[in-house]
Amino acid sequence: LIAEILSTGDEIRTGALIDSNSAYIAETLQATGVFVSRHLTVGDDVDAIEQALKEIANRADVALVTGGLGPTVDDLTPEAASRAAGVSLVLDRAALTAIEGFFQKMGRPMSDSNRKQAMLPEGALRLDNPIGTAPGFMLYIGACRFFFLPGVPTEMRRMLAEQVLPRLSAQEGGNRRYYPVRTISTFGLPESVAGERLVGLTEEFPEITLGLRAKFPEIQIKLYAEGDDETRAHDMLERASEWVARKMERHVFSTDGSPMEAVVGRLLRKQKATLGVAESCTGGLISHWLTEVPGSSDYFLFSAVTYSNEAKIRVLGVEEESLLKFGAVHEEIVRQMAHGVRRVSGAAYGLATSGIAGPDGGTDEKPVGTVCIGLATPEKVEARRLFFPFGDRTRKKQMFAMTALNLLRRELLGDPVELWHTNPGAGHRSFSL
Amino acid sequence: LIAEILSTGDEIRTGALIDSNSAYIAETLQATGVFVSRHLTVGDDVDAIEQALKEIANRADVALVTGGLGPTVDDLTPEAASRAAGVSLVLDRAALTAIEGFFQKMGRPMSDSNRKQAMLPEGALRLDNPIGTAPGFMLYIGACRFFFLPGVPTEMRRMLAEQVLPRLSAQEGGNRRYYPVRTISTFGLPESVAGERLVGLTEEFPEITLGLRAKFPEIQIKLYAEGDDETRAHDMLERASEWVARKMERHVFSTDGSPMEAVVGRLLRKQKATLGVAESCTGGLISHWLTEVPGSSDYFLFSAVTYSNEAKIRVLGVEEESLLKFGAVHEEIVRQMAHGVRRVSGAAYGLATSGIAGPDGGTDEKPVGTVCIGLATPEKVEARRLFFPFGDRTRKKQMFAMTALNLLRRELLGDPVELWHTNPGAGHRSFSL
Repeated sequence: LIAEILSTGDEIRTGALIDSNSAYIAETLQATGVFVSRHLTVGDDVDAIEQALKEIANRADVALVTGGLGPTVDDLTPEAASRAAGVSLVLDRAALTAIEGFFQKMGRPMSDSNRKQAMLPEGALRLDNPIGTAPGFMLYIGACRFFFLPGVPTEMRRMLAEQVLPRLSAQEGGNRRYYPVRTISTFGLPESVAGERLVGLTEEFPEITLGLRAKFPEIQIKLYAEGDDETRAHDMLERASEWVARKMERHVFSTDGSPMEAVVGRLLRKQKATLGVAESCTGGLISHWLTEVPGSSDYFLFSAVTYSNEAKIRVLGVEEESLLKFGAVHEEIVRQMAHGVRRVSGAAYGLATSGIAGPDGGTDEKPVGTVCIGLATPEKVEARRLFFPFGDRTRKKQMFAMTALNLLRRELLGDPVELWHTNPGAGHRSFSL
Repeated sequence: LIAEILSTGDEIRTGALIDSNSAYIAETLQATGVFVSRHLTVGDDVDAIEQALKEIANRADVALVTGGLGPTVDDLTPEAASRAAGVSLVLDRAALTAIEGFFQKMGRPMSDSNRKQAMLPEGALRLDNPIGTAPGFMLYIGACRFFFLPGVPTEMRRMLAEQVLPRLSAQEGGNRRYYPVRTISTFGLPESVAGERLVGLTEEFPEITLGLRAKFPEIQIKLYAEGDDETRAHDMLERASEWVARKMERHVFSTDGSPMEAVVGRLLRKQKATLGVAESCTGGLISHWLTEVPGSSDYFLFSAVTYSNEAKIRVLGVEEESLLKFGAVHEEIVRQMAHGVRRVSGAAYGLATSGIAGPDGGTDEKPVGTVCIGLATPEKVEARRLFFPFGDRTRKKQMFAMTALNLLRRELLGDPVELWHTNPGAGHRSFSL
C-alpha cells in the first residue's frame, strides 16, 4: 500500500507555519504498515490543489489530505476535490445536522459560513469530526482512495485514529507489513557524542534503521524495525533497544516516549513523595511542564516563581544579607530557595533555580547561560552551578528546567548525578552531566 | 519567479523528523520576492529523487533542494541530480581541497567516505559550505535552476543567505516583485466568526490575499500583498490592515505579530506598573509566557503556583473557611488569591486563576473547563467565572492563561472587558469575551 500526504494552505506554503501534520500522519501510517512515499504542500489555490490531487491519484493507492475544510473563503479543498473527481458539490444533510448539533452543544449560534462546510463532493463518504465543525470525507479519485481531514492538529489526529486507520487496515488484507518504532529519550549528551556511542548498531542489527532526533533539550533515539512477521520485528526492536540503553547508560530517562516531567511525576507518585519548586530564571517553566501531566496535583504542591529579590526574601525566607553578598545567582541562594520552598510548601522535596537566561544581565563572572540549581531532600540540601552557552533565552530556560528535573530524577532513583562543581566565578565551563 | 522546494530523506518521509527547513526556505524566499508554489518531500531513494527533480524542472524557474549530500551510502542527491540532468558525476578538485581543509582545521582524520562528497554532477557550480563537509552545488536541469544544500539546518541557512539569495537577486534583474505580509493577532472570537467579519475584504482590496490561522488560543489574520512597486504594496497592506482592525474591534491585541505576553509587558512597562500572579489551574504557564519576554524582570515580580489548598492559605493568605465553603474554584477564592499575591509581591496588579483543566476533577456544578479569574488593581479586586468546553488539558491551560492576560491587557488599556458573569453553578455556558 503506497500512500502520499498532501497539506494545503498558504500558511504552510509561505513558511509562516511549519507543517507538523504531515510528519505526524507519516509516522502514524508507517507504524501501521503503510509505506509513505511523498509529502506535498500547495497553497490555498483551487487549481493548485486540483492539480496535486490528480497527480497523486495517478501514483498512490491512498492519500491523506489536510486543510481547507474550514468555513472561510480560503477553504477550497472540497471544491478542488470535486473538480478532480469530476463530480459536483452537494449538501450532505447528515453533515449539516452534525454541524448544527455542534453549535447547539456549545450554545452558540451557527453562522451561514458554517453551512458551507456541509457541502461535500458527490459520492464522498462523510467522516465525523467529534471535536470541530469541519467534517472530513473519503473520496475515490481514479483508483486512489483519498481521506480529507481538517488542518487543526487535534481534530486531524483524532479523525486519523478513529476514521482513517480502521479503514486502511481493512483495505490491506493479507499483505500486511509491520513497521514498529521505539523511542529512547536521553538527556545530557550532545547529539554528536550520542551518535558516536551508537556506532556499530547497524552492524549488530542490520534490519534496524536508526534515527537521531534532537527534540531540544532532549535527544531522542528512534529505532525502526520492519518485517512481515510482527513478533519477529518486535523482538528485534526489543534487543536493539537494550543495546542502545547499555550504550547510553544513565542518560536514558524513558523508553516509551514519555517526557521528563512525566518520568519525574511517576517516581514521586511511586514514592508517595511531594514536590515544591522555587523558580527564578526558569520563570515558571518547570511548574508548567509538571502540571501538563494529568493528576500532577497528587504530588506537585507549590511553586514560587520569585523573579524579584523581594519575593525570594518574603516568600522563601532567603536572607537579604546573602543576596547582597553573593548576588541572586549563586549556590548559596538556590540552597536557601530550595530549603525555603520545601518548608513553605510542606513538600518532601524542594527544587530551585536561579540563573541568567539572557539576552542581558550577564557579567564576566556570571555570563548569560549560568544557572545554579538547588535541591532540598528530607536528608540534605545541595546546590550546583552549571553553564550552558548555547541558544537563545527560550532554549536556555528549557535547558535549565530540564537539568533541574533531571537532577531530581536521579536523586529519586537513588543514583544522584555526580556533577563537577565549578567554583563561584569559574566562569566559562562547558556542560556535562 | 516561481520556486519549488524539495526536501529529501527517510527521516522526513517517515515523519521521524518534522521538516522545518522547507518552512524556513519558503519564508526567506517569499520575503525576497520569490513566489514559492510547492514543497515536496521524498525519501533516500535515488529513483524517487530523480523523478522529483524532473517534475520540478518542468514547472519551476528555480528550486531549492535539501539533504542527501552527506558522506554515507544513503546520501544520494548528487547521483540523482546527475541522472536527471543527463550528465556524469565528476571529481571537483576544489571541493576536495575544501573538505580536506575542513578536516585539517578540525584536527580530525578525513575518511574515504568524505571523498565521495567531492563528486559533483558535470557542469555544476560548487557552493562553499564554510561550516560543514558537504559542499552544495548549483545545476540547471532543463530551464530550471537548482540549488542543492545540506539538510543540517545551520549549514543550510548560512548557505541560503550567502550563496543562494545573492544569485537569485541577480537572476531576477528588473522583475523584482514584493510580497509584504502583515499579521494581526486577535483573541476572543471563534475562527468562523472572525472569518465572517472579514467578508468583503477581498472585494474592498482585490489585490490582498487573506489567511486565517488558528494559532491556538489566538487567531492570526494574515494579509498578503503583492506587487512590483514596493511602496504601493505596503500602502495597500496598511489600508487593508486598518480595515481589518476596525472589523475585529477590541479583539485585536497586536498588529506586528507580538504575542499577548509581550503586549501586556509593554503596557506594564509604559505605565511603570508591576505584576504578581497567582496560578492554580494554569500551573505556571502565565509566568512562563511572561518570562519568555526579554527584560520581563522589570515588571514581573512574583508568581505563586499554588496547586495545593495549603499553599493558597500559607502563601497567599486565602481563608481556609472560604476554601471549605466555596471550594478552590470560585470567584471568592481568586479574589483572595489576586489580592494576596498583590500584597505579598508588592506589585501594582495581582492576577489569579483557579479552575479545572481536566481530564479529571470536574463536577456537575463545575465541569472540566471551568475557570475563575481574579484581578486586583490599585483600586479594586474583581473576579469572573468562565467556561471553555474545548480541547485537552494543554489547550485548556492555554485558554485560561490567555484569557487572564487579556483581562489584564484590557484593564491596563482603561477599557475593561465587560464579561457576563455566570452564577455559581450555572454550569455549561459558553465562552464570550
